[in-house]
Amino acid sequence: MNRGLLLVLSGPSGAGKGTVCREYTEKHKDVWNSVSATTRQPRAGEVNGESYFFLSREEFEKRIAEDDFLEYAEVYGNYYGTPRSEVERKLSEGIDVILEIDIQGALNVQENTTEGIFVFILPPTMSELRKRIVGRGSETPESLITRFRAAFDELNYVSKYNYAIINKTVEESYEKLRSIVVAEKCRVTRISKELVSLKEENYNAFND
Amino acid sequence: MNRGLLLVLSGPSGAGKGTVCREYTEKHKDVWNSVSATTRQPRAGEVNGESYFFLSREEFEKRIAEDDFLEYAEVYGNYYGTPRSEVERKLSEGIDVILEIDIQGALNVQENTTEGIFVFILPPTMSELRKRIVGRGSETPESLITRFRAAFDELNYVSKYNYAIINKTVEESYEKLRSIVVAEKCRVTRISKELVSLKEENYNAFND
Repeated sequence: MNRGLLLVLSGPSGAGKGTVCREYTEKHKDVWNSVSATTRQPRAGEVNGESYFFLSREEFEKRIAEDDFLEYAEVYGNYYGTPRSEVERKLSEGIDVILEIDIQGALNVQENTTEGIFVFILPPTMSELRKRIVGRGSETPESLITRFRAAFDELNYVSKYNYAIINKTVEESYEKLRSIVVAEKCRVTRISKELVSLKEENYNAFND
Repeated sequence: MNRGLLLVLSGPSGAGKGTVCREYTEKHKDVWNSVSATTRQPRAGEVNGESYFFLSREEFEKRIAEDDFLEYAEVYGNYYGTPRSEVERKLSEGIDVILEIDIQGALNVQENTTEGIFVFILPPTMSELRKRIVGRGSETPESLITRFRAAFDELNYVSKYNYAIINKTVEESYEKLRSIVVAEKCRVTRISKELVSLKEENYNAFND
């Protein structure tokens, strides 16, 4: 069995990484949408191991010390992180793992693993990105400008990624993401199992 | 306009690179199936610039001296080669170029260019490859063994390639090749045009 792919989907807020990720995981039920760990309290309806892995602060910090996070951050007094052991287990079972994450998180993942296919989701235009952020209605004029400036700065991180998808429509972006996965599974470095089986055939094939 | 992709399709005799290449070029009329140059005489019906570029020996050797071949070889007293200038012109016009070529040729192309996406076509099993070679009916029992041994040796070259496709059915292999092309066009190194246009939008987007 070949190892699963670690797909890291990232990009500026408003580019649409959440939508693309949702479309992909809906069409590929065999992909594991990585579940974060957090120290914040569960909200009504949230299930441990599905919404989040809910950990005590003590447990979270123990895991940090054990280097068991691909990335983590503290936000408003609560920890959030991607547990390495969960991801590792899925990958070693041959299951693809998708990680939708902000840019800082993605860069941290890059530092903590040698694998990972890093995909940057870009808006078709920056005015479109602005429109999407405004459309959410959750920003003040001031925080809008902050967020928008941040998105511009974040464009510079694209060079740290393997792929970029200009997110014009969700269908087109989905097709591109699917192609990236199919292509990555054809990488010569990932077909060792098939190659070994071709080479082992040697004598049988000669003698049939 | 982004530069075209140079797709190099290769693999052992009998793996089916010709079939996969034909399927791809039939479905993608905008791809240029590279035309080789040769010093052999044109046969009835062969059109210069379509079947081959027919060159005199003198002209061919002049072009060798000018380093105008991505690869060339002399076979039974005739030269065959891939003209660099033709390929370069298409790529710079944003046209993808597909090159179906034997393994030695592909390795030569690798030495003569820094670009190129190298795809190795593998048979599903070696006995299947043997069956296909036998099916052609053009081999003596002796030449069959030679060819078959060569195919085994050639498996070792797969590590020099970027991708490998196990050619079970032409439909599946076509889909994989198409995915490789789509994915390669999403490579961060290839979307400079789009990135520049996003970054240039800066002030307009702020002021609308």
